[in-house]
Formats: sequence, C-alpha cells, structure tokens
Amino acid sequence: MDTKRTYNYRIEPRDVDFSCHATLKALVDYLLHTAGEDADRNGFGVRDLNLNNASWVLTRLAVEIDRMPAEYEPIRITTWVSNVTRAMTTRNFDILDERGERIAGAVSNWAMIDLSTRRMLDLHQLPAYDSMTQEFPLPVALPRRLSSPEANETFHHTVAYSDLDFNGHANSTKYLQWVIDTLPLEWLQHRRFLRTDINFLLETRHGEQLTLQAERSDNEALYEIRNSRDEAVCRLAFRMG
Amino acid sequence: MDTKRTYNYRIEPRDVDFSCHATLKALVDYLLHTAGEDADRNGFGVRDLNLNNASWVLTRLAVEIDRMPAEYEPIRITTWVSNVTRAMTTRNFDILDERGERIAGAVSNWAMIDLSTRRMLDLHQLPAYDSMTQEFPLPVALPRRLSSPEANETFHHTVAYSDLDFNGHANSTKYLQWVIDTLPLEWLQHRRFLRTDINFLLETRHGEQLTLQAERSDNEALYEIRNSRDEAVCRLAFRMG
Repeated sequence: MDTKRTYNYRIEPRDVDFSCHATLKALVDYLLHTAGEDADRNGFGVRDLNLNNASWVLTRLAVEIDRMPAEYEPIRITTWVSNVTRAMTTRNFDILDERGERIAGAVSNWAMIDLSTRRMLDLHQLPAYDSMTQEFPLPVALPRRLSSPEANETFHHTVAYSDLDFNGHANSTKYLQWVIDTLPLEWLQHRRFLRTDINFLLETRHGEQLTLQAERSDNEALYEIRNSRDEAVCRLAFRMG
Repeated sequence: MDTKRTYNYRIEPRDVDFSCHATLKALVDYLLHTAGEDADRNGFGVRDLNLNNASWVLTRLAVEIDRMPAEYEPIRITTWVSNVTRAMTTRNFDILDERGERIAGAVSNWAMIDLSTRRMLDLHQLPAYDSMTQEFPLPVALPRRLSSPEANETFHHTVAYSDLDFNGHANSTKYLQWVIDTLPLEWLQHRRFLRTDINFLLETRHGEQLTLQAERSDNEALYEIRNSRDEAVCRLAFRMG
C-alpha cells in the first residue's frame, strides 16, 4: 500500500530570521535532511551508495510556500519518490503543520553519479529502487528549466570553508543563501517567497570566485551564478508575494 | 541532589566539513542550542525573559576539544549553571560520546539585558535562579579576557541577512564562522582546534561593514572584529594542535 513517510521537526531559534519565522534556507535544509534520512532508512542513502563509489546529486528543486512556520512550531515533512528514469529520480515533499494543514510543497530531482568520474549512473542499477515509487499527485509543478537572466545587477562571492560539505564542494543550500543575501532587505522584511526554482549545474570548490548576475522585476528575480571560467554553476528564480 | 542535565544529538551531514567530522561552529551551535533548551525547561528561557522585556546575551565562551565527533556519531551534551553574580552567570558543558568519554568541554558567561535600554539587569532578580547553581569542577578554565591583536592581516565582512537571528543582530556563532573562513586552509585540513576563547563585546546589524584584524603565529591566532565606528565588537583566540 502506498504511504508517504513522515519526519517530524521543530523550527529552532537557529532557523529563524528577524521575523521569528523560518528562513527559506532553513526549510530547504529540512527538506534535504528528510531526503537523506528517507534514502538512508530505505537502503539507498549516501552511505549505501558510497559502498559502490556512487553518490546522489541534487539537480533541480522547486519549493512553494503557503506560510512560513514560526519559531518553536512543530512541522511534519512527508516524502515519497514518484518517478525513476535512467538519469533522474523525483522526490516530493509536503510540509504540514500540527493540524495537518499544508505549509509548503516541494519537488526535487536527483541524479546518481560515480564519485571517481563524476559521470551520471543509470538509476535502474539501484536494486529495488523502482519499487519505491508511489503514485500521489505532485505537491507542486515540476522544477522549471531556467535560462540565463538579462542581468541588471552583479554580485560576487568567494567559496569559503563554511560553504563546503562532506564532498568538499559548496553545499546546495549555500547557493540559495548567497543569492538571498543579495535580495533587497525590503523584500525579506515585507514579502513572501511564493515559489522558488533552482537548477544546480556544476559543483564549486574552496576559493572559487563566483559572479552572481541578477535580473529583478517587481515580484520576480532570476539569478545565474557563474564561475571564473564563465560557466553557469547554478540558476535560481524567485516569485514573491 | 546535584545532577547535570543531558541533551542528545547526532552529528548530521550539515554539521561536517570535508573531513566528515563536525565543524567547530556546528559544535558551538549544539552548545548554544543546549543552553537555550535547558534554560527553557527550567523556566528562565528567552521566551520567559521576554515576558519581562529581558533577554540573555552571551558574553564569553571557551571551548576545548579533545576530538571532533564524526558524521552520524551520537553525542550527549551535559550542562549545568555554576555561578551567579549580579552581572553574570556561568553555564558549563561536557560533550560526551556514546561510551561516555569526553569529546569536548566548554564554559560560557551570560548577562541578562533589558530589551529596550540594552542595559544589563541584576541576575538576582530572576526568581529561584540562585537555586539552579550546582557544584561540579569547571570542565575547562574560564573564558579569558582577550586584548587587541598586533594585527598583521586584515579581512572584511558585511553583515548579511543570513547572519541575523531573531534579535535582528548577527548571531553569536557567525562571528566564529567569519573568522574561521579566513584561517589558512592548511590549518583547517591538518590541525585541530585545541582551545578557543571568544569575547562578545557589541551587537552588529544588517549591512554593517566589519574589519577582521588577525595576529597569527605558528599555533595561535588572535582576532579582533571592529565595526565602522572603529569599535571592537568581538575578539577570538585559537590555540591549534
């Protein structure tokens, strides 16, 4: 029988901004933590894949937020895998409050790579993974493929020690943090993130000097992060309310 | 009967660096989270103090690390309050592994401030707080009072949205992160943080342009963070192994 698996958290003081509500980055941290836990418990976590010199790579993410949970608020994240092709799998999330009402929904795409060659591996190689897929309606529309912005503003970031994760690459959530830090403070104080799409394209390493190019209108922003070889490493799109 | 209260955690993927062991910042995050939880459960947490328009401010911290816990390792943090004067209280921590062996020890000093005037309040005003103190040996020597460095290197940081906490000020652990990000990568790859002392002197707000001045020798580093009014806001000292 199909079930969504549930993980429980609480919005901690470290997760909130000056509004005493969770930041978008904190919510995405909980989503990725849930993805890791759920993969682990079902036998295809990073540690299992590492035994075969493989790992997961997050390629796309879309998050729609109905309301931001408040400090100390308990949240429930339900998750399920809905689709597997050779190159990509889709993991879905609902974020619910204590009464079971939806706070947010998210859809993510993942690839499996060989840790030596960094090439994509065929997901059908994962024993029993196909049997993991479950048929529920997608919580939000699939992550969009983003194009380059018509940039009207440029920012800079050098990849620091605190950006790195266990792979020695900048952590996925750091791209989001760097970009949000360049948004007008007025947006962060008075507007809401209705929908965020992210395309992760390339990994970045310690000391890399990145350029953040932004195209912003009244309620939308499109960013591209480029490395010093002028390659796009990440694109992000925000729709604000 | 005197007891140390215990809080259980696990080192999560988001807590580790490329060595797959916890970062110093992640350990300090767990210490401060434990301080918050323990104060909350005993009736003098931030939410209780806020009812009287007061809050806690961390003024000094000393952390000594025997070994860094590994990714997915369970840790136990025990904590107790050992001393209360009019102006300051001392909270102590042991970090233990699953077998009860010490991973790290820490001592912190806290003041209580009035949220309107930002002035220190008399801790003896806190009902029953004196009865909280417990007599155990200090886990490490008290945090040192640090003086200004003879700076031979200078770095810069502008306080960003992601640095802010519920107070609208940069979070205490961010000072540590900014400074660690300027340490030589070789130190972070091949050395250990034996002892860290931090003096928190002033709050910082969004957009403040800070200067980080560093005096480094073979195994020690002393930093001072100054704001644009040339006031010292934080000093940090590291002894490496």
